[in-house]
Amino acid sequence: MIPRPYLLFLGDVSDEPLAKTAFGIRDWAPDATLGQSRLPGCRVDLGLPELSPGEAAVRGAKSMLIGVAPIGGAIPPHWISSLLDALEAGLDIVSGMHTRLVDIPEVRETAERLGRSLHDVRHSNRSFPIATGVKRSGKRLLTVGTDCALGKKYTALAIAKALKAHGFDADFRATGQTGIMIAGEGVAIDAVVADFISGAAETLSPAAAVDHWDVVEGQGALFHPAYAGVTLGLVHGSQPDALVLCHDPLRRHLHSHPDFPIVEVETAIARYLVAARLTNPAAQFVGLSLNTAKLETRAAEALIDEMQARHGLPCFDPMRSNLDALIDKLKAI
Amino acid sequence: MIPRPYLLFLGDVSDEPLAKTAFGIRDWAPDATLGQSRLPGCRVDLGLPELSPGEAAVRGAKSMLIGVAPIGGAIPPHWISSLLDALEAGLDIVSGMHTRLVDIPEVRETAERLGRSLHDVRHSNRSFPIATGVKRSGKRLLTVGTDCALGKKYTALAIAKALKAHGFDADFRATGQTGIMIAGEGVAIDAVVADFISGAAETLSPAAAVDHWDVVEGQGALFHPAYAGVTLGLVHGSQPDALVLCHDPLRRHLHSHPDFPIVEVETAIARYLVAARLTNPAAQFVGLSLNTAKLETRAAEALIDEMQARHGLPCFDPMRSNLDALIDKLKAI
Repeated sequence: MIPRPYLLFLGDVSDEPLAKTAFGIRDWAPDATLGQSRLPGCRVDLGLPELSPGEAAVRGAKSMLIGVAPIGGAIPPHWISSLLDALEAGLDIVSGMHTRLVDIPEVRETAERLGRSLHDVRHSNRSFPIATGVKRSGKRLLTVGTDCALGKKYTALAIAKALKAHGFDADFRATGQTGIMIAGEGVAIDAVVADFISGAAETLSPAAAVDHWDVVEGQGALFHPAYAGVTLGLVHGSQPDALVLCHDPLRRHLHSHPDFPIVEVETAIARYLVAARLTNPAAQFVGLSLNTAKLETRAAEALIDEMQARHGLPCFDPMRSNLDALIDKLKAI
Repeated sequence: MIPRPYLLFLGDVSDEPLAKTAFGIRDWAPDATLGQSRLPGCRVDLGLPELSPGEAAVRGAKSMLIGVAPIGGAIPPHWISSLLDALEAGLDIVSGMHTRLVDIPEVRETAERLGRSLHDVRHSNRSFPIATGVKRSGKRLLTVGTDCALGKKYTALAIAKALKAHGFDADFRATGQTGIMIAGEGVAIDAVVADFISGAAETLSPAAAVDHWDVVEGQGALFHPAYAGVTLGLVHGSQPDALVLCHDPLRRHLHSHPDFPIVEVETAIARYLVAARLTNPAAQFVGLSLNTAKLETRAAEALIDEMQARHGLPCFDPMRSNLDALIDKLKAI
């Protein structure tokens, strides 16, 4: 568990896309975001109270979270004094960067001296068991996709929220760094040693009450030449009862690998079912989540209706639609 | 590269199965095995010259290789003085155990003082790129299986040997610790961070001359609830032109997961082809390798003939049969 609430550190970034992590945490974990801390020159504003680490600590903050991804993925040297200030003020630090906080000597030494923790959520220090393949109690939903970076995390967050709003006992289970920051816990599944992917996924959604839902954030895609192994191991270890396919109807090729066309929705559904049924013969698709961010409202709604009719599944964009039809389907599982 | 030839260290094990690694290296890398070193009480004999580390070094040995897997997988304390002797005699040490040599303080300190290397082949210290999915020149064969531990390594070794005997330019590409010890190099693919499985597989069999064959040792199985992610990533990164399915006709359930039945050969072939064709649309099966160790000669031969007729593929047991029909098939690729 990462101690919360957070002070969100934005550094001196100038573009909102670089602060995607901070916006995601503000939107999806509002109770865990106490304020923002910015350096001179920062032109991004989350609309949260401006607090120094000391002020945030007084108000109850437990960690300062680096909510921006600077170009190059490394922590710039002129941010380090802010990190030290946060440690001195009594806060842990949370980072999703490739550069580890523990590899910055001043930060590591200060944290050790003060007894604070450094949470490098992109990296995994935990060891996991080999997967058993044994079915666990409780219900599980996994978001899967026709590609990376098209809404698997947001879809899972929206479904977990809707389940709770409908009175279900449900947990969002994070498998990537932003998801872990939002949930305060989880497993960066792509950082696990390959032998333990499925074992880590089993650990992530442990046995639960029979009517409890774990909503697991998907990763990668079965059709991705670099990440399909992560995806398959996550599918097997999650043992989903319910699958939701996330799809960007305008994308023609894999985002990072333009030589690879996006597979048809029907093909994706068939392949994911084959994979999932190895560890859960009852696995079924319960919905289709469309990323219609680039479409106007009328065009998006028309497409959602068309896809729903074509595939016979509740179809929605989690940023536009309500999820009532999906929730009705989950009630029957 | 691990410096060779090896002195094979057998410790004081009493049972041949515990020395499986040493026998494999003696059989498949005879030019790299100079002698054996045993402690009092050892009842296993490789039939190699008995040498102390000092004698082995004089004869040209470059490494002492721990060729046994002691119960529990850890190096017993009473072996450590032998490891120190080897380092003092000028040899590197090679181990495939879970316990790392570098985590034994005396061994690490002695190696550092003398400038020797410790090769923990089960672990990976290398970093790999994200897979590109871009087709590389040269030809590749990958052994795949209906389960783990049924002959994927031996099949790949036998095919690489047969290709060379038929005048092909070929390399065995090791993906597990014993394979790496036999080849002197390779990547323990299941020890790689999950995001980089396919990237590591791409690195393992780099672009080569158009008529060169890389014969890649398979790992796991697509139908294995713990290891399928490793298998899929290896299939995608290897981009095999040719696949050989390894199968134990007497096995009814996964060796380590008895709740999972072994899939039919036809099903396995179809699923592996779907997986392989993502990164190599020309991927095809060229043979069926049967592990008939538990059958008598006549029964094994009858089964091989029957399976060959049923599946329309060259069928063989690499421990019994010649591979001429398979090699003929590879000539046409």
